Amino acid sequence: MDEGTGRKRGGRAGREGRRSRRSEVKGQAPAFITRAIPFYEILGEEGLDRIETHAETILQEIGVEFRGDDEALRLFEAAGADVEGPRVRFERGLVRSLIATTPARFTQHARNPARSVEIGGPHTVFAPAYGSPFVRDREGGRRYASIEDFRNFVRLAYASPWLHHSGGTICEPVDLPVNKRHLDMVYAHIRCSDKPFIGSVTAPERAEDSIAMCRIVFGERFVDENCVILGNINTNSPLVFDAAMSGALRAYAGANQCTVVVPFILGGAMGPVTTAGAIAQSHAEAMVGVALTQLVRPGAPAIYGSFLSSMSLRSGAPTFGMPEPALASLVVGQLARRLGVPMRCGGSLTASKVADAQAAQESADALMPALLAGANFILHAAGWLEGGLVMGYEKFMLDADHLGMMHVFMGGVNLDDNGFALDGFREVGPGQHFFGCAHTMANYETAFHTPELADNDSFEQWRDAGGHDAEARAHQRWKQVLAAVESPPLDEGIDEALREFIARKKSAMPDSWY
Amino acid sequence: MDEGTGRKRGGRAGREGRRSRRSEVKGQAPAFITRAIPFYEILGEEGLDRIETHAETILQEIGVEFRGDDEALRLFEAAGADVEGPRVRFERGLVRSLIATTPARFTQHARNPARSVEIGGPHTVFAPAYGSPFVRDREGGRRYASIEDFRNFVRLAYASPWLHHSGGTICEPVDLPVNKRHLDMVYAHIRCSDKPFIGSVTAPERAEDSIAMCRIVFGERFVDENCVILGNINTNSPLVFDAAMSGALRAYAGANQCTVVVPFILGGAMGPVTTAGAIAQSHAEAMVGVALTQLVRPGAPAIYGSFLSSMSLRSGAPTFGMPEPALASLVVGQLARRLGVPMRCGGSLTASKVADAQAAQESADALMPALLAGANFILHAAGWLEGGLVMGYEKFMLDADHLGMMHVFMGGVNLDDNGFALDGFREVGPGQHFFGCAHTMANYETAFHTPELADNDSFEQWRDAGGHDAEARAHQRWKQVLAAVESPPLDEGIDEALREFIARKKSAMPDSWY
Repeated sequence: MDEGTGRKRGGRAGREGRRSRRSEVKGQAPAFITRAIPFYEILGEEGLDRIETHAETILQEIGVEFRGDDEALRLFEAAGADVEGPRVRFERGLVRSLIATTPARFTQHARNPARSVEIGGPHTVFAPAYGSPFVRDREGGRRYASIEDFRNFVRLAYASPWLHHSGGTICEPVDLPVNKRHLDMVYAHIRCSDKPFIGSVTAPERAEDSIAMCRIVFGERFVDENCVILGNINTNSPLVFDAAMSGALRAYAGANQCTVVVPFILGGAMGPVTTAGAIAQSHAEAMVGVALTQLVRPGAPAIYGSFLSSMSLRSGAPTFGMPEPALASLVVGQLARRLGVPMRCGGSLTASKVADAQAAQESADALMPALLAGANFILHAAGWLEGGLVMGYEKFMLDADHLGMMHVFMGGVNLDDNGFALDGFREVGPGQHFFGCAHTMANYETAFHTPELADNDSFEQWRDAGGHDAEARAHQRWKQVLAAVESPPLDEGIDEALREFIARKKSAMPDSWY
Repeated sequence: MDEGTGRKRGGRAGREGRRSRRSEVKGQAPAFITRAIPFYEILGEEGLDRIETHAETILQEIGVEFRGDDEALRLFEAAGADVEGPRVRFERGLVRSLIATTPARFTQHARNPARSVEIGGPHTVFAPAYGSPFVRDREGGRRYASIEDFRNFVRLAYASPWLHHSGGTICEPVDLPVNKRHLDMVYAHIRCSDKPFIGSVTAPERAEDSIAMCRIVFGERFVDENCVILGNINTNSPLVFDAAMSGALRAYAGANQCTVVVPFILGGAMGPVTTAGAIAQSHAEAMVGVALTQLVRPGAPAIYGSFLSSMSLRSGAPTFGMPEPALASLVVGQLARRLGVPMRCGGSLTASKVADAQAAQESADALMPALLAGANFILHAAGWLEGGLVMGYEKFMLDADHLGMMHVFMGGVNLDDNGFALDGFREVGPGQHFFGCAHTMANYETAFHTPELADNDSFEQWRDAGGHDAEARAHQRWKQVLAAVESPPLDEGIDEALREFIARKKSAMPDSWY
């Protein structure tokens, strides 16, 4: 399923590939990143073996519970697992063998084929933050999110060259009924953007609705044969999958769509306070989730996820962008590669309330390890504040700008003759400057990435322009972008069919607010 | 010279070493970092060969000029270089062979032996920013630096557990005469701190004064046999050393003290706009500087430095914390390891005017690559703003806090049995929380690093405490620290001899303000 898209992959890993990718970055942004820098291998074989052994011990001795999902239990029992009530235990190596049919790479198709993304291998895809009940902007402060906020962020992600993906529940539109808002969210992703997106997972029938809407857009047969939507499934750590989550997982896998399986482990609460144990637990939980997708439909795409956080000693509050989870991301990347399954990491994470120095520092410290770890799908790449409680407008713009820099970082160093500039040295010589030399003139416009929101002016220029800090500049910018952005065209027949589907679904059930 | 300090090194690289280092970090901070994570090897052999070949071509074909320093020219000619006027050209491999006597590691002694630092190999040392004429704090704004500011920053670095080094010209005390201020700066480093420091390089006689003051503190023979001071020498890129810099270099090397040789290359001005060429140039210039130290005194310690920046396409202004120099740092680390010489990188760099999101993001994006590159000495690790024009009080505190997190990052993942927490999983089981379990209780206080300035409270707690952003919290904190810090004890006889030396030197020359 990951072949036949007409895109070159393997052949682009060399010097040639680096050149063409760099020019993509400078001109039009690529639909996804193809890394030209190596993975960072933080642990050796021995350490990785040790983590895998502990994960197998957890699965064998303690096991995982599937609560209220008889079908999942039946599938595991049929596959040879030891099922006792909701508890499922696995002999060593069983889960790993069940995972073997998972594709190492696949394409998630967008309704605009130019925005389809490759997930796996050397590729990285950036998606907005996910799941916050609140939004914040510098003017309006912190408030509950609405469907208008949701649409705004879909539009901002659509307008950004550096976000490859439209995300999922970018923020919770709490002004809409809980049992219906997924319809409006999926519709907004389709209508206001043409990038790939994530569907609902809060109940199996909402997952089915999300997939049904994709069938209207892409056609039934295409959806059955190709991945067009992701479902992002959190485990109920430690070591539990509830029926809503495993049911949604089965809905996506059964439709041949991709499930992202994410153990969400706040150290000291849903897992141990020590990193090695949290990694082993995360590995065990993610493997079991991926294995279930393969029991439902062998060959269905899946992504192995991780989300580990640390804890403040002073308050017991979760912390983000800290060194322990950064180290864990690097290890998890290695474990995913050994499994041969695409990997998801969190991106620009922070506990800060505003888009200040804390927010930027923590976000950068979380993002770069995810990139070095080889994460193929980076959720929460833009907008995340307050440990995920808040989607920030200014934070979104600053993060997106940062993602642009990371495109260049992932492009590596160009070592062709022009890169070495020997003619420039011959022309300039010792003690002279390179300002006007031929090499500089020929390369000036493509040599350096220039971010949009960083201020590199002199102090006097900056002061005279108002002395705005980065958050203030980001505030001006999102308003400009939102005022200018237009939704991409959508076939009228499809649009009508989608709105008809939504109206029918909504009228068939009373509003629920829980 | 790097042996016989009684410190274990090689034996600490294993699991045992990681444990002991982690406990150091949690309790009292170590005098320097010993990394437990691998270097990140961004290029393969072929790419590194290609860069080295181009550097040799620059040295052979174009050469380097030593302007106004006949002694340097004489030394190079005697070593077999081709000298023509100020221009020195080198046959391929000559410079590399001259470097061979440089120690791969050495100890820089502090007047408090517990604060001596190991430079080279798996070690990393953090030093404050260097050289800014201005300072900034949130209350007083941006202003010229004074000797009082200088002392303040020496005290803040002394008080921080995460800065290993007192630095050098942390800011320029422009209220003192240019030809005398080095005496007050070196005295402040000795009097207000007991960490190792950097001396003056603005003229050879000021370098000699700096070393003479060290002889008063450490004794003549100790200084002749051990490194107690560094000199930070910038080249006049492209491909020039002026007489002040090469003279200061010879003064430090001749006294068996360490010279840090730093090509300072703003891409498009002092070097090409393309990264590969800038790296080759930096490599050529740094190698020549290190080679000169060895011609002056074989075996003298030296550090191979690099400082590459990028440029804004919009304004031509230098930019910092951008992806191109981040990539360059990673390559330069590999080149230094192949030379077998300790390596210096810049740390928390930014073009921002204030300690905002831009400042923190750029600083983090510059610092982590320096760490992954294996930088042994990281200058500008705290305080840098506005491309080095400004030393920021709040920025200093935020950076120092960030360095604490990086200590933990460099400590790697602890893979001992306690780290895996199997007993914890057995006690807790699926669906229960780890809050009160025995493993959490036993590890709670040492498990997670908690930074000082990050706010991880709930939104309501944060709001009710004033809703301060990170810069505001840092402002409060530096005032508290400065009010509380006391200078470490200094032998009265030494103190008197230093003050006498300074008074004698000052009275022997008229004030100069240029």
